Amino acid sequence: MPDLLPYLGQAAYLQLEAFQTLSRAVGEVEDLAAKQIIAAAAGHALSKHQGIVAEIRRRDDDPAEVMRPFAQAIDGFSALTTGSDWRETVLAVLVTSGLLDDFFIRLAAGLPGDVGPRLAQLLGSENGQEGLLAVLRAEIVADPRLPSRLAMWGRRLVGDTMLVARSALHLSGNHATDEERIEPIFTELIAAHTRRMDALGLTA
Amino acid sequence: MPDLLPYLGQAAYLQLEAFQTLSRAVGEVEDLAAKQIIAAAAGHALSKHQGIVAEIRRRDDDPAEVMRPFAQAIDGFSALTTGSDWRETVLAVLVTSGLLDDFFIRLAAGLPGDVGPRLAQLLGSENGQEGLLAVLRAEIVADPRLPSRLAMWGRRLVGDTMLVARSALHLSGNHATDEERIEPIFTELIAAHTRRMDALGLTA
Repeated sequence: MPDLLPYLGQAAYLQLEAFQTLSRAVGEVEDLAAKQIIAAAAGHALSKHQGIVAEIRRRDDDPAEVMRPFAQAIDGFSALTTGSDWRETVLAVLVTSGLLDDFFIRLAAGLPGDVGPRLAQLLGSENGQEGLLAVLRAEIVADPRLPSRLAMWGRRLVGDTMLVARSALHLSGNHATDEERIEPIFTELIAAHTRRMDALGLTA
Repeated sequence: MPDLLPYLGQAAYLQLEAFQTLSRAVGEVEDLAAKQIIAAAAGHALSKHQGIVAEIRRRDDDPAEVMRPFAQAIDGFSALTTGSDWRETVLAVLVTSGLLDDFFIRLAAGLPGDVGPRLAQLLGSENGQEGLLAVLRAEIVADPRLPSRLAMWGRRLVGDTMLVARSALHLSGNHATDEERIEPIFTELIAAHTRRMDALGLTA
């Protein structure tokens, strides 16, 4: 069971980071239709961020204070996941937000009070994923060298993202027990990740 | 009276550009409270963009096609208005969006059908300006050299912005007549601009 405030702070900052990363891609993509689709996905991440911030304020806590402990680690993570072009950056958000949203939805079930179901619903709401997948599929069709590059990039992202997920867990320190608890969750997350990569025709 | 589709295309792309510019500032600012305020303003610009795009779709037109004729000019304008740091960039959005939103609200009165009032309401809705002003005021208090730099920057922006506004007008080609029609509108826009600069303690 996660503690509520760190959960909210980390989840809020991750959404803000996804917003920033997608916004950067909006500035880099030339095609106006793709620009709008990526901007819409950025708007969804911003809405989720604002929804989590509203939960923090509801508890009379200061969102900036609650997010601060996670800012440096997430900024570092974001630097690692910034692609060499906007296609890699969009895939990075698909992969990392896909994994982390699923993960935080699972953790929400363990939160005290009635905040868990509200957060699970918020995090599971529209995220613009279908639009981003369509934009990337069009790029993949147009550039035969792109699939192998994106597949490799996707694989690298999974490892970094799992470290972020792990940092949100209270681990017992007993390696065998921890692995036993974490393993089935991560197996599910990876299965959903594999389905997203399949939707792009990429091997996970 | 402006033609509807060029009006919608230019207005939609200007909001998308404001979204992009504010998003860049979100990535550059360190303070988490300021980050959230600027992100919220970016979200408002995105909502306006999406509202105008909905009007374009309602007419069965393709938003990307309708925006395309304005993309290059507005991208060039945006490059001119990108500041040397995030404070200048935030002031640029306050100044340019302030002037252009007022201008497009005025033009909306001349649109055919019932779209004008809807657009005037959309463009006049919450834009996060108060939050941006508060963030800049805090910066100005903390840095005594900032006001003169921002005041100068603000003055430069007005000229470039007025050229964009002018490009949205159907001019008769008769210089004297055109000036007579435009002058009172621009006088009002500048008065509102001066009030915004006053709110920052800066001379316009």
